[in-house]
Amino acid sequence: MREQTIGGWLDELASGAPAPGGGAVAAMHAAMAAGLVSMVCELTVGRPKYAEHEPTMREVLALAGERRQAAVELAEADAEAFTAVTAAYRLPKATDEEKAARTAAIQEALVKAADVPLRTAALAGEVLELARRIRPGANVNVLSDVAVAAVSARAAMQAAAVNVAVNRASMTDVVARARLEAELARIGDEVAAAEKFIEELA
Amino acid sequence: MREQTIGGWLDELASGAPAPGGGAVAAMHAAMAAGLVSMVCELTVGRPKYAEHEPTMREVLALAGERRQAAVELAEADAEAFTAVTAAYRLPKATDEEKAARTAAIQEALVKAADVPLRTAALAGEVLELARRIRPGANVNVLSDVAVAAVSARAAMQAAAVNVAVNRASMTDVVARARLEAELARIGDEVAAAEKFIEELA
Repeated sequence: MREQTIGGWLDELASGAPAPGGGAVAAMHAAMAAGLVSMVCELTVGRPKYAEHEPTMREVLALAGERRQAAVELAEADAEAFTAVTAAYRLPKATDEEKAARTAAIQEALVKAADVPLRTAALAGEVLELARRIRPGANVNVLSDVAVAAVSARAAMQAAAVNVAVNRASMTDVVARARLEAELARIGDEVAAAEKFIEELA
Repeated sequence: MREQTIGGWLDELASGAPAPGGGAVAAMHAAMAAGLVSMVCELTVGRPKYAEHEPTMREVLALAGERRQAAVELAEADAEAFTAVTAAYRLPKATDEEKAARTAAIQEALVKAADVPLRTAALAGEVLELARRIRPGANVNVLSDVAVAAVSARAAMQAAAVNVAVNRASMTDVVARARLEAELARIGDEVAAAEKFIEELA
């Protein structure tokens, strides 16, 4: 996906192809958030005025770079997981045995498909944490980019929650459903915390 | 920018280069929102079950395609406007005349730089409106993508507001400042309306 053109990816998103879709968009939000955190670090390091924050900036710079890469990988993983769900729904259902096998395959694919946005939400939470860490020592000229990073991380979490919820809705396993409900509540709290951080920066 | 690779663009975002930055990210959020609206239309048209919504879907499909293209152009325009602000700040300021010319150039560049995120916010508002229009007749299997489109449009608006505010903060013209304050209040209302729409879809 890194090698794909922006225009080509957006056109594919806009098409009727099963992927990329909302899950990949959530991951791309997280990738942009991580990119902006890196940018702020880059524009802060090496400046005498911010010398005391240099160790934090260098550490966050390395972490944000890893998160950016991981986010793009999650966008790809989402497409794969979604394709697996679609394939499971297309399994034959002529006999009772086929029906049972198909149902089991769908449920297994749904659990995996819900796992990708959960990881996207967790990653976006980490990026938000990096934005919080650099906020006190960031070059004041790019504080607005810390705010936009938080906006993007918040969007990644909220979009991921939408995708977890839609997979959960098709699940029959009560334990898996309860676990995802708890995760959704936790993501909801993180979205609210992100919104508070954005308001403080405004 | 359409021809740039996703990896290359994200790396440039993460670098210390003056652009792309938060303004381009805001526009990319809007582009992804428009892309998802198109996707939902594509997955709804031509299906007997949704035949009565076909005219709406076809109309929105055309509009969303235009918005996606316009959003990418705004991401490019933001980089240009930001570069102009940076160039104005670098003008000579040795004499009183140079100082006056520099101040005037900075103020002019700031007004132009604030105009791009205003257009991004307006565009995101239009995409949100398209999401609202397709919501009642959208293929139920991709309603979650309508929700993610709204999340992305909301993020585009909120990120655009951050960029309008930061340009406004450096402006001295009281009329321009008052106008932007009114625009920011309006965008704030739209973000709140988007959040309500997202919650209704959840």
